[in-house]
Amino acid sequence: MADQDRRDFIRSAVGAAATVGVAAGLTGNAVAAAAGAPAITDTVTRPGHGPARSAGTGGQFSPIRAEVTILDCNIEGKLPVDLNGGFYATGPDPQYPMRQGNIIFDGEGHARLFRIRNGRVDYRTRWVKSERFVANDKARAQLFPMYRNPYMDDPRAKGLSRSTANTHVINHKGLILALKEDSPPVAMDLNTLETVDPVYTFDGQLPRDRAFTAHPKVCSKTGNIVAFGYEADGFGSASVAFFEIDKAGKKVWETKIPVPYCGLLHDFAVTENHIALFVVPLAFDPEQIKRGGIHWSWDKTLKSHLGWFRRYGDGKDVKWVQGPAQSGTHTMGAFEDAGRIHFDTEMTAGNPFPFMPNKDGSPPDLPGSVSTIYRISANLSGKTKGYEVKQLYALQAPLPKQDDRYNTMPYRYGYAACPDPTVAPGEVAGSCYARMDVQNGTYELWNAGPKVSLAEPVFAPKSVNSREGEGYLLGVAYNLDQNLRSDLVILDAERVKDGPIARVKLPVQASPQVHGWWVREDQYPA
Amino acid sequence: MADQDRRDFIRSAVGAAATVGVAAGLTGNAVAAAAGAPAITDTVTRPGHGPARSAGTGGQFSPIRAEVTILDCNIEGKLPVDLNGGFYATGPDPQYPMRQGNIIFDGEGHARLFRIRNGRVDYRTRWVKSERFVANDKARAQLFPMYRNPYMDDPRAKGLSRSTANTHVINHKGLILALKEDSPPVAMDLNTLETVDPVYTFDGQLPRDRAFTAHPKVCSKTGNIVAFGYEADGFGSASVAFFEIDKAGKKVWETKIPVPYCGLLHDFAVTENHIALFVVPLAFDPEQIKRGGIHWSWDKTLKSHLGWFRRYGDGKDVKWVQGPAQSGTHTMGAFEDAGRIHFDTEMTAGNPFPFMPNKDGSPPDLPGSVSTIYRISANLSGKTKGYEVKQLYALQAPLPKQDDRYNTMPYRYGYAACPDPTVAPGEVAGSCYARMDVQNGTYELWNAGPKVSLAEPVFAPKSVNSREGEGYLLGVAYNLDQNLRSDLVILDAERVKDGPIARVKLPVQASPQVHGWWVREDQYPA
Repeated sequence: MADQDRRDFIRSAVGAAATVGVAAGLTGNAVAAAAGAPAITDTVTRPGHGPARSAGTGGQFSPIRAEVTILDCNIEGKLPVDLNGGFYATGPDPQYPMRQGNIIFDGEGHARLFRIRNGRVDYRTRWVKSERFVANDKARAQLFPMYRNPYMDDPRAKGLSRSTANTHVINHKGLILALKEDSPPVAMDLNTLETVDPVYTFDGQLPRDRAFTAHPKVCSKTGNIVAFGYEADGFGSASVAFFEIDKAGKKVWETKIPVPYCGLLHDFAVTENHIALFVVPLAFDPEQIKRGGIHWSWDKTLKSHLGWFRRYGDGKDVKWVQGPAQSGTHTMGAFEDAGRIHFDTEMTAGNPFPFMPNKDGSPPDLPGSVSTIYRISANLSGKTKGYEVKQLYALQAPLPKQDDRYNTMPYRYGYAACPDPTVAPGEVAGSCYARMDVQNGTYELWNAGPKVSLAEPVFAPKSVNSREGEGYLLGVAYNLDQNLRSDLVILDAERVKDGPIARVKLPVQASPQVHGWWVREDQYPA
Repeated sequence: MADQDRRDFIRSAVGAAATVGVAAGLTGNAVAAAAGAPAITDTVTRPGHGPARSAGTGGQFSPIRAEVTILDCNIEGKLPVDLNGGFYATGPDPQYPMRQGNIIFDGEGHARLFRIRNGRVDYRTRWVKSERFVANDKARAQLFPMYRNPYMDDPRAKGLSRSTANTHVINHKGLILALKEDSPPVAMDLNTLETVDPVYTFDGQLPRDRAFTAHPKVCSKTGNIVAFGYEADGFGSASVAFFEIDKAGKKVWETKIPVPYCGLLHDFAVTENHIALFVVPLAFDPEQIKRGGIHWSWDKTLKSHLGWFRRYGDGKDVKWVQGPAQSGTHTMGAFEDAGRIHFDTEMTAGNPFPFMPNKDGSPPDLPGSVSTIYRISANLSGKTKGYEVKQLYALQAPLPKQDDRYNTMPYRYGYAACPDPTVAPGEVAGSCYARMDVQNGTYELWNAGPKVSLAEPVFAPKSVNSREGEGYLLGVAYNLDQNLRSDLVILDAERVKDGPIARVKLPVQASPQVHGWWVREDQYPA
């Protein structure tokens, strides 16, 4: 996570958790001040609710709660004529004030779209109308008050999908699927973002209680969606289901495998012939859950496990190798080569989310939560004791991306938001976009300056047939000195260091984003 | 117009008019600085368009262009349990960058609603989807580039209603009618603000080319809408049609009268038995129009004329008396008593809108544009040479209001936004809400401070049967130091000086407002 993003998360957590001590030694104001953002002094209440932070008082994960539509947005600079498609994203936006001790990851999903066509940009955000959102709105209360803790649910939550749909989006069959890793997708209209199915089971091909990862991959050869759902044998179970859905929506493969323990499986890796997963010690914590806490805690006594198995098989060939307690949350790319599997991911030495508790009660370990970019490699034979880890970049880039046409094959370019690595520790680093050339180990940067917080970028190819990297890098810049009024910045992905060639100037704060996705013009229904 | 509002208008005009010299000697930045708002330094362009001001860079008439929906808004303080209904408004929001020399009054209508029920507030804004708006959106251009100047229209504008629907709103038969005085209303859904009829002719009872005032009155006895349309015999004609529509939508009366000249008739007065109008020297200017300018110019060689005639008659009894060139734009209240008619209005000694040209080419007369509150009176017999004018309040209140249940009968209380009159000239006066007791000549104020720009308030009675003045005063406060992030402030209308009892905290700039209207809960369809 970039410094700025990390501060936003921490600030959000601290703002919501108040004096809970999740981030002992830090106060919301202190963190906000450190980030150069206005201090959190503005609290509002609603009848029956505790204090809630106002919009615009924190970083990019400040609540906005406003559905927004802007036709023909103002543009500064020159919008490329060969940029046509849609930039979709979702992120957590607290529908109701959050319970003390809960975390920003539990805000309701707020989806957005920059629809770009023929030199025109229309902007639209909509709450994902999940079963949970609709029930909360009716109740005027948060019926699911603690992150993935069903014991804390209000009785009115019974039987409803828990999905907040706040993590990622992907297009499928003319729909946008809003994803949360603990539940089935929520399906939205590709153009309007209106919710069309709050529990999307691919026409009944997946059980209604089957989780669906927030990071499915699109097979570079077939266009199939390759996905998984953990806790596949019930709440807290150490079992993961894998499945592949073709472009027509038909499930063409499914299997289930046991994992060493129920640890966070936020993302995974898919190569031409294999699937790899990295089980990390942010583990299911039943005692903490019974005490009213969140789903996970960091258990440094556990090992990290890399596993892999053949696609389209029964999963019984899975091989596991171990390493020390460490984390890898987001995959940049993966491929296999000469009998080895390579899994490029950001990694941390400890708990990647310092606002999640440590099982031993120790305070947040900020240095241990710093992500940089690594390559995990292993022999596919499994005849090695562990996995190899090599740092590719010291960039603090918790949300690395690639050209999504290369999800399952060798790739050259990665993209990420990160603080400027050339700024001395202790000084305020500007928020940057980086393009990494992972084949030759170089990178280039554009620094947006210290008064901006950049969200995760997406890569938009000029066309379906463009060579890798030929296209644009798009990302949202939240202006910390303008009450979070935001711009969509558009860079030539082959000239990142030159900075934006166009800015879409929003009159308001953009909705919060965790992950985004680009839908090419050729992927829209005629 | 309150000082703040006037500055906003001027700033908007200057921003749009750029170097045109409409407001010679003033620059946008200088005016903005005087108002304590950020200077206008941020310009954006779109292909084929000139520079446009960005949102948040000026006062309350800054473009926002974002349709917004917020469910269950955050509230600070305690929302009264007996405040139930809807606060509707509309205002000009430039859909496309404005042509040099055009005025902010020509921005497309952007309607909004604060729906208040059972302690919950939902906020919603929608562009009024007028014929003009829809055509502009399709063309990606302003097809009506100059204020009420058909000679400047793009050919694609031909045959379309010119209404911007940006001035006022009123409820009728379960609809909200968005009004612009040069065209028929645009009808919107009362709950969603979606446009249901872009040219609302009351089921064909009014011609499609008949203007409809932005300030109809609701008869205190019958609930009928009393309205008029000027230029009733064609473009620039000195002829005014009057009509009355009952609650069921039936036109129950209509007549037409000639007026001394085609001058601005923005508002009028209706009493139990009479209709009065005040024709002012902001006059139709055909030469200016042919030169590509706006509809009106201030012709100080003309006299102001007060006229009145009996309701439900043929208008042939109309009586006219004259006074010096002066203006009265907005009616606060009117009534008849002991053979006299009394017409309370804000008045100016000169051109009330200094961004509109003076016919003689003289520069804007800012002192002459300052509104204060007057009572115009005349003997109904007409046996007097002129009309009497008495200042009721020295408050600079260009948008005075009353409890709208008293539109056509004697009333006691008026309400307005105005600068604090106790602040010495040259110092920055805070923006205030005032309640005036016109029966005893007193007033009380709440001062929101110098970093706030207050829009016109509305009065919301606690119930249909509440005594006059028993209810709430609602208004939008634009925070000049928070990128125009806005609050709805709610005051006890009988304790205005105590300030807000509740604030609805928006995360964004509220849409621009000229006038607003309160719809009581009992006026919503079941």
